[in-house]
Amino acid sequence: MNKVQEFNEYREKMNGVILGKQNKVINRLFNLDTNTYAEGALPTRTKEMLGLVASMVLRCDDCIKYHLGKCHDEGIKTDEMYEIFAVANIVGGTIVIPHTRRAAEYWEELQEEAK
Amino acid sequence: MNKVQEFNEYREKMNGVILGKQNKVINRLFNLDTNTYAEGALPTRTKEMLGLVASMVLRCDDCIKYHLGKCHDEGIKTDEMYEIFAVANIVGGTIVIPHTRRAAEYWEELQEEAK
Amino acid sequence: MNKVQEFNEYREKMNGVILGKQNKVINRLFNLDTNTYAEGALPTRTKEMLGLVASMVLRCDDCIKYHLGKCHDEGIKTDEMYEIFAVANIVGGTIVIPHTRRAAEYWEELQEEAK
Amino acid sequence: MNKVQEFNEYREKMNGVILGKQNKVINRLFNLDTNTYAEGALPTRTKEMLGLVASMVLRCDDCIKYHLGKCHDEGIKTDEMYEIFAVANIVGGTIVIPHTRRAAEYWEELQEEAK
Amino acid sequence: MNKVQEFNEYREKMNGVILGKQNKVINRLFNLDTNTYAEGALPTRTKEMLGLVASMVLRCDDCIKYHLGKCHDEGIKTDEMYEIFAVANIVGGTIVIPHTRRAAEYWEELQEEAK
Amino acid sequence: MNKVQEFNEYREKMNGVILGKQNKVINRLFNLDTNTYAEGALPTRTKEMLGLVASMVLRCDDCIKYHLGKCHDEGIKTDEMYEIFAVANIVGGTIVIPHTRRAAEYWEELQEEAK
Repeated sequence: MNKVQEFNEYREKMNGVILGKQNKVINRLFNLDTNTYAEGALPTRTKEMLGLVASMVLRCDDCIKYHLGKCHDEGIKTDEMYEIFAVANIVGGTIVIPHTRRAAEYWEELQEEAK
Repeated sequence: MNKVQEFNEYREKMNGVILGKQNKVINRLFNLDTNTYAEGALPTRTKEMLGLVASMVLRCDDCIKYHLGKCHDEGIKTDEMYEIFAVANIVGGTIVIPHTRRAAEYWEELQEEAK
Repeated sequence: MNKVQEFNEYREKMNGVILGKQNKVINRLFNLDTNTYAEGALPTRTKEMLGLVASMVLRCDDCIKYHLGKCHDEGIKTDEMYEIFAVANIVGGTIVIPHTRRAAEYWEELQEEAK
Repeated sequence: MNKVQEFNEYREKMNGVILGKQNKVINRLFNLDTNTYAEGALPTRTKEMLGLVASMVLRCDDCIKYHLGKCHDEGIKTDEMYEIFAVANIVGGTIVIPHTRRAAEYWEELQEEAK
Repeated sequence: MNKVQEFNEYREKMNGVILGKQNKVINRLFNLDTNTYAEGALPTRTKEMLGLVASMVLRCDDCIKYHLGKCHDEGIKTDEMYEIFAVANIVGGTIVIPHTRRAAEYWEELQEEAK
Repeated sequence: MNKVQEFNEYREKMNGVILGKQNKVINRLFNLDTNTYAEGALPTRTKEMLGLVASMVLRCDDCIKYHLGKCHDEGIKTDEMYEIFAVANIVGGTIVIPHTRRAAEYWEELQEEAK
């Protein structure tokens, strides 16, 4: 099982556990999270880029993986992706580099899988 | 070996290495850390909840595990726990969700172990 | 005008500007934020302490002020408050001290105002 | 003097002091920072939005002001801006709200000034 | 009153308020904080540089001011200081720049005052 | 393969992937990162200590490993190293402890390897 599948399966399984507890605030936040990236004044494509760069500077590997998957679905190309990486590394500093290494690896896997 | 045992063993082993170096500041900080959660004007139970929510918004998985164990010892129930998770996710944002997934998994293991 | 009034007025004015733009995600998040601290499995009093400690370790002065006001309304006493400060400073480190100074000052003003 | 002018003047003055010290690493980083937002695979307009959302979740008021000014120059509209604010607040949590209040105030001033 | 005096007076006044509450954990942490920078295997001079760079990447303006004052007392020169600034800005990213501007201003005042 | 080799190999492999994409900003940032720690007004030895403490308070395990390796090359001794750990833990709080555990483990491996 590759990193993409592993991430998606764990995410789905644990989201099921969490949502199953019926905490109203958490369940509504998960719902609101989905709505945040819907088409609006800005297209989903742009919003997913925003979600990715935010996840990178906050250095959350799982959030990065999630938005990399979404950006891939939105047809973002590798040279565009590396410009997003550039913004994240300049704003957030070299502390973002290790996360960029893992992001680059995951991005390669997303490309492989799409073939 | 489950996640609870794995965490506790590594923690104990490495704390031994660190404390063995006899750095006065570090050893006193470790000691002070323990005192922080002692009964006082606020009960230990409340302080452990405070330690947990602080660890969640700062997104430190090992600190979360430690306080989950302590909260479990204090008899905190699952619906109370998910309200702590809710505060952490609202204050800290969706960036806390991946840590909540791992916290939820660890919490399930603590329940299992207690049976 | 003291710090308590100043904070509350600016907060109210700018919340009005923000909510007036009718961005659905933001307006729902503001609403969800209020619900997070409602009575539930845990009392509001405990949740406000959780909100405060989370704000302190994330070092957001305005969030600290907001929850200090709420904790004051909930009848939290000064020795309890300083135990919350203690958890925040131990978990978050001396980097939290300057925020604790401003929190202590605001807490004194809340006491003064209540006389 | 309004907040826009105040920010720009202080920024310009202190950048002068810093760059005048001729520290090679700092001076090259300032230069690289400018290049990061140049037209490329992604347009400047998108990159400025990325810079803004990154600044918001990292909660740097001055960085937010800088990118708000640039986004204004790029012709970003208020409903688009609030969708950027929404992503920042959902990803970064309610801890971002006080920064959003100051961002909203600065955005209003940028609109005023443009009239 | 300049920024150096203003910082020192507020710090002293509020430390007095905090320590006066006799919270054992906080008072011991303040004491431990002082010991951290004492001469040891590493000289105070080096430790103050470490305290400064840590404060810069964590973006705490008051902590930065405190350590700038201490570094000044230790005889650190301006070209050395800007190399510390360089490490902080590279590791922490451009998000550190606004704090560097305020640090540079405070450093100038410390030089002025020493004349 | 031990942790030191594992870290170095992954780092080298993924840096190769990233640099190979020829994003000018990223490649220049990587280059600038190297220059930051060159001999200057401050010696490399001091700068590597600064890079380490900055990485610790920002809680980036891979950055910590990188600078631990460099500090080891610079001949920093264990009692000096633990004083750096002490500054990081006091400034950054107990949230840094889990990272200190992993740092202590890696430091032991660097010593072992050198025998």
